[in-house]
Amino acid sequence: MPIVVQKYGGSSLETLDKITEIAKKIARKKNEDYDIVVVLSAMGKTTDYLLDMAYKISKNPSKRELAVLMSTGEQVSIALLSIALNNIGVSAVSYTGGQLNIITEGFHTASRIANINKDIILNEISKKNVVIVAGFQGINENNEITTLGRGGSDTTAVALAAKLGCCCEIFTDVDGIYTVDPKLHPTAKKLLRISYEEMLELASSGAGVLNVRSIELAEKYKVPLLVALNAGYIEGTIIKELDNTMEKSSITGLAVDNQQAMITLNGVPHNIKIISDIFGKIAKQDINIDMISQTTPINNLVNISFTIPKVDLPITIQIMEKYKNEIFTFSYETFDNISKLSVVGIGMKSQPGVAAKMFKILADNDISVHIITTSEIKISYVINPDKQQIAIEAIAKVFNL
Amino acid sequence: MPIVVQKYGGSSLETLDKITEIAKKIARKKNEDYDIVVVLSAMGKTTDYLLDMAYKISKNPSKRELAVLMSTGEQVSIALLSIALNNIGVSAVSYTGGQLNIITEGFHTASRIANINKDIILNEISKKNVVIVAGFQGINENNEITTLGRGGSDTTAVALAAKLGCCCEIFTDVDGIYTVDPKLHPTAKKLLRISYEEMLELASSGAGVLNVRSIELAEKYKVPLLVALNAGYIEGTIIKELDNTMEKSSITGLAVDNQQAMITLNGVPHNIKIISDIFGKIAKQDINIDMISQTTPINNLVNISFTIPKVDLPITIQIMEKYKNEIFTFSYETFDNISKLSVVGIGMKSQPGVAAKMFKILADNDISVHIITTSEIKISYVINPDKQQIAIEAIAKVFNL
Repeated sequence: MPIVVQKYGGSSLETLDKITEIAKKIARKKNEDYDIVVVLSAMGKTTDYLLDMAYKISKNPSKRELAVLMSTGEQVSIALLSIALNNIGVSAVSYTGGQLNIITEGFHTASRIANINKDIILNEISKKNVVIVAGFQGINENNEITTLGRGGSDTTAVALAAKLGCCCEIFTDVDGIYTVDPKLHPTAKKLLRISYEEMLELASSGAGVLNVRSIELAEKYKVPLLVALNAGYIEGTIIKELDNTMEKSSITGLAVDNQQAMITLNGVPHNIKIISDIFGKIAKQDINIDMISQTTPINNLVNISFTIPKVDLPITIQIMEKYKNEIFTFSYETFDNISKLSVVGIGMKSQPGVAAKMFKILADNDISVHIITTSEIKISYVINPDKQQIAIEAIAKVFNL
Repeated sequence: MPIVVQKYGGSSLETLDKITEIAKKIARKKNEDYDIVVVLSAMGKTTDYLLDMAYKISKNPSKRELAVLMSTGEQVSIALLSIALNNIGVSAVSYTGGQLNIITEGFHTASRIANINKDIILNEISKKNVVIVAGFQGINENNEITTLGRGGSDTTAVALAAKLGCCCEIFTDVDGIYTVDPKLHPTAKKLLRISYEEMLELASSGAGVLNVRSIELAEKYKVPLLVALNAGYIEGTIIKELDNTMEKSSITGLAVDNQQAMITLNGVPHNIKIISDIFGKIAKQDINIDMISQTTPINNLVNISFTIPKVDLPITIQIMEKYKNEIFTFSYETFDNISKLSVVGIGMKSQPGVAAKMFKILADNDISVHIITTSEIKISYVINPDKQQIAIEAIAKVFNL
């Protein structure tokens, strides 16, 4: 029988009623002659509740212990779903990450899966059991409990599917991947298929449905991913290798990111060492610099603009202030309210002129651009947020999104 | 440095404030140059909350999964206390039962500890860490999570102390062992010392402070047990081997049990096979028959009275009804409201006449007795509950309890 890995997120597990509904859904899939491995997140807001307790006790809680604490959230979910499945006559067994030998490496609360022992799962499957796995967690080489960081349950599911050589179905509170976030553009179209490459660019540009690491893993191990609604039978989106069934539109989707901030440094000496030094100091704080633009030098001075996650703005300002006082004088401006639009499409590779078309759209609508970056299948723009909606509608219209 | 095992129960862990208070208490003990192993229960009513969810999903939840579910309660406690300790500069690490290789045998939710690997604990102690252990849980030989049954955290603590060859301090919401439950007899005296043997008889007769299994273990491995209040510095009770420091009063304590029911069978043939058959049918349902009395035969018929836990009365009635219809006719009466008083004292061994003295007290107060049983250091009486308070006061007065 084919194996399938199904992952259910926290919003699918908010209440006991929702858990019993999921049990019925799994029972139906089992009746279609599938062997099923289920990966679960914590119920509803459990992770936030647990974190809140930890931070009430300590401003800087031990990371080792945070992982011990947070991993209980998924453990409650797996036990309850297993009870619900056994209650309707579907034999099921639950496993924590540690019990399954999901070995991780790296920090306690931001670990990466290094290896999974699939023998335990295959043994349970041979006994006709549904195997229910706690997502988001594992153990490190010292047998300490670890967690994978936010969104880690998706990664657990994809890693298991990779190891088992099967499909992975991610059930969530949206019914698939859209050309544009329907909250921002209600007439956006659902994509039936999308390539890993495009999905990766959309996800890393602010489309929040899947986390980037899980898409990378799926691409690496060629795991077909289905993203679909946790309830009902609405068709979702399949994420897989590019093939002839996929339409090669110049633009497949538009991602919007409002979680970035922009900093502009004015009058920086046009000296690669100084510039690299500034960015080095920021990177050392584990802050991810995303987009960078630099003006042409005037009197050997340049202006540099770059974006960082909005949450990292205060610490970046501290770094700038220190640098200003210690090294040389320059002025800087910060913009904590910017809009980053990214258009993504595999067709860009073969159809030139998308950038030009985009410029025309923005110019026609009197939208000025602060930073632009391009990759082979993506172009990103930073614009003022008051122009965001006009830009979305104009781009969606021209590219039929 | 000497090692000590400290156990804190759920009422000591009800709130985050109480957890930070316990952290301070442990820090003080650490400053007295102790290496400390802490065993925790789940916070407050967590176990009840988790069980409630399981029973809302299924009337007969899988025992394997109940253990997975319930064990999260202690895991939350150990992580939070460890965070609180590290926050005040006391380095601490938490361990689940499974991580410590606390191997259990038996049913998933009523397991017994078979073995503990102390190497992990000794290694952490050598690194000057406080070791915080999730009580009430372990893993079985199949690497499945198990729980020890209610009160199991006491057992974990005593088992660890036995393995480490050290004392065990049980902190709870009462400040020690009293001659009589102070709720029933406010002038009861606190015992500074009591022998394992007496404590065992008191606990198995309804004194609820410690569970029977933990006292048995302490006695077997000669672990000195301190029972004391979780907050403050009030002196508690030490439970240890009988020695010359202990007063050998004829009666050390009086236990009251209102959780028993009595059944009286009238007109049963005086035939050991039939009587044994009835009791066998009850025992087969895992119902514990406690006290038994039988009248002398009249016309070869006897009356038999016995006690069982009150919760098992409905199923026992079913057994009686079935037996009555299938085998032979007899009548029976059930009493779900009885009072079982037990007087316990190691001095009974050497001072005869306690039973006679007790009879006189009851007769003087016009209290009739339904069943009596005696052991070497205990006499138990079933009386009507409306006479309970009079009996307690009269016995306490005569024996100076």
